[in-house]
Amino acid sequence: MATGALMRRLKLSKAFTLMEPGPVVLVTTHDGQKDNIMTISWTMVMDFTPVFAITTGEWNHSFAALRKTRECVIAIPTVDMLDQVVGIGTCSGADTDKFARFELTAVPGKVLGAPLIKECLANMECKVVDIVRKHNIVVLQAVAAYFDTARKEKRMLHAVGDGTFIVDGRMIDRKKLMASKIPYGV
Amino acid sequence: MATGALMRRLKLSKAFTLMEPGPVVLVTTHDGQKDNIMTISWTMVMDFTPVFAITTGEWNHSFAALRKTRECVIAIPTVDMLDQVVGIGTCSGADTDKFARFELTAVPGKVLGAPLIKECLANMECKVVDIVRKHNIVVLQAVAAYFDTARKEKRMLHAVGDGTFIVDGRMIDRKKLMASKIPYGV
Repeated sequence: MATGALMRRLKLSKAFTLMEPGPVVLVTTHDGQKDNIMTISWTMVMDFTPVFAITTGEWNHSFAALRKTRECVIAIPTVDMLDQVVGIGTCSGADTDKFARFELTAVPGKVLGAPLIKECLANMECKVVDIVRKHNIVVLQAVAAYFDTARKEKRMLHAVGDGTFIVDGRMIDRKKLMASKIPYGV
Repeated sequence: MATGALMRRLKLSKAFTLMEPGPVVLVTTHDGQKDNIMTISWTMVMDFTPVFAITTGEWNHSFAALRKTRECVIAIPTVDMLDQVVGIGTCSGADTDKFARFELTAVPGKVLGAPLIKECLANMECKVVDIVRKHNIVVLQAVAAYFDTARKEKRMLHAVGDGTFIVDGRMIDRKKLMASKIPYGV
């Protein structure tokens, strides 16, 4: 399946704005045989280029594929996908085909081998640029980004960590006051 | 000024739940002479103990104090403090007393030398446990946490990075489904 019109390429210079608000994300990998997905809320923007950190390690089944292939996709789900997000985060790819179980569609990316998730608001193909083993930090650089421009529901989810989630509320514009801090191309 | 009843001690085992949703935060330092504050939205939970990462470096005036004293306070502002958050993020402690300019109250913590911010929803005294220079990551461990239980406004802010901010919206409870992932003490 082609990514098609629903997933328009997004300028890489804007991709950090998908992660800076701190949404819970889905991270896909392909280990050479199978696709897998994990739910991650421990993420951080590190640079506008964009570079991201995620905290993960041996305790996630996906970590082996991430270390071996040195690539993944960060997919951004929205509030209508909450039960899929929770389900993906509470079972293991060791014994579950999560795309099948949670009725998600794996779409080939244009650059790397890990699949995009068609149902998500946005997807970013990412290369692993470093693994800081001491702190279980995986440093990722996005090499391609996609945004579903046709999608109506755009509200992201924020995990609290106690089993509750906060949904995006209203947006407040401070672009004029923030002008000195907004990088070129955003 | 004592922290008083408005800032109750919060169990350290719950403190990661303040950061996991990805709010924009204020980080205070005291360099031996002056207090300072910076606005940071590039943060990540790394462990429940709690351990946090922030991305910062020489480009932030506060970094020198952070490196020298190896301590700071992470304070969590709410939506009513947006213009203070934006103002703090767009001027420098090199030439500005930010507590005075933004009418914020520095309150001594119980453990470390960096000040709490009385007006914030929550505050965490943090020790620097590592600085990963290669990636401009400062690893922090919270050693004391406080929450303003009397505060009515509890909605946090999420920076998008393009000059807009998203306010916390509604909360959705998935505690039953998430039970296997909620650590002891939360």
